[in-house]
Amino acid sequence: MARQERATRTRATILEAAATVFAERGYEAATIADILARADVTKGALYFHFSSKEDLARGVLAYAVTTEGVPEQPSKLQEVVDVSMVLAYRLPREVVLRAAARLAADQSSRDLFGAPYSEWTELIASLLDQAKAQGELLPHVLPEETAGILVGAFTGLSLTSQASSDISCLERQVGLMYDHMLPAIAVPGILGRLDTSPDRGARVSAQAAEEDGPAERDGEEGAALTAGAAAGA
Amino acid sequence: MARQERATRTRATILEAAATVFAERGYEAATIADILARADVTKGALYFHFSSKEDLARGVLAYAVTTEGVPEQPSKLQEVVDVSMVLAYRLPREVVLRAAARLAADQSSRDLFGAPYSEWTELIASLLDQAKAQGELLPHVLPEETAGILVGAFTGLSLTSQASSDISCLERQVGLMYDHMLPAIAVPGILGRLDTSPDRGARVSAQAAEEDGPAERDGEEGAALTAGAAAGA
Repeated sequence: MARQERATRTRATILEAAATVFAERGYEAATIADILARADVTKGALYFHFSSKEDLARGVLAYAVTTEGVPEQPSKLQEVVDVSMVLAYRLPREVVLRAAARLAADQSSRDLFGAPYSEWTELIASLLDQAKAQGELLPHVLPEETAGILVGAFTGLSLTSQASSDISCLERQVGLMYDHMLPAIAVPGILGRLDTSPDRGARVSAQAAEEDGPAERDGEEGAALTAGAAAGA
Repeated sequence: MARQERATRTRATILEAAATVFAERGYEAATIADILARADVTKGALYFHFSSKEDLARGVLAYAVTTEGVPEQPSKLQEVVDVSMVLAYRLPREVVLRAAARLAADQSSRDLFGAPYSEWTELIASLLDQAKAQGELLPHVLPEETAGILVGAFTGLSLTSQASSDISCLERQVGLMYDHMLPAIAVPGILGRLDTSPDRGARVSAQAAEEDGPAERDGEEGAALTAGAAAGA
């Protein structure tokens, strides 16, 4: 293995170990010792890649806002749904996303690192802008306002569905959320054609993986993390 | 002051001090010493009322699910909206509710105490059942399912709106959430008559206070806490 590739893999291993500890224990209770034990690397290797626990948390949060696994769609409103459904599919299955969600929901770590909500809102608002330009939205819809409601609702469902032991609970809940919201957003001609079924996220993720291949998707580190997530599943 | 009344007030003072510390620092970081300093009572007084930090958290969470300040309405769907709008009004203004929300959003304290989400969902579902019986809901609406989506969405908006320095942000967001959801829930004859304006919570709270007087509303401790919250505002 080339030295560069080995370093990339070590970094991904450490980040995934940190995510596992953050997801299980929360930011405050997590320690560098826990993360070292979980990653099975030396202290030197960890500090070569990350300067502190804060730096590890920032590394995890860098993966929190992503459209990885979401193919472009002719309907931009379907793409809005897809961004959420893919995240609902991946969140319970990928520890880096679970850790980012836990860090974002915790006020202490939010005070330290900020939360990804405004980035998510911008991303959804820009897709809704495109949907509006294509005539997919009812005339009264304000993209930024609606994006804020969608992101807030998704965030809450990811919290309330954690109590469920069913890994597909969030996908079902987010599909239902869209069933409750889309009649107030979409023009009638589009509404009937939008797919909000619970397995939508799994299906478009698989489609995206076929189209791109993991190595192209998110750079080498992303590929290493994705491979790790798949191996851990 | 009668001894009983004094004890009730001391308990309310301690509970409010605990809520302030939990709301500011989170459950894990909060200490009994912080709470004693904030309440300005003796250790003996605190331990007379509460056996531990856990017990204080349970005391705070006991106030998390409440329809205080929500008058009955002929439209049960309006009452569903009102329960949310009153909570959106009170949450940023009452530290006991803010503390309960922070405890519920934090996974460590959720693991210890559970979260009030299922109680909220039952409460909303039972109002939706009544709305359904009165013919207010579209035929496909399943009260329990819709209640879960409403509670999840509210929970998320209370998190994402914390970043705003505007105390009315949550009321606006929850009103917008209902504007986005009600067209998929209410029959057309009801839909146009539902009030989701941001000041709805403040108005019905004031109405409820006039009708009942605080002492009748929630027992003496509730009244003492409400008085404390008003004094702190």
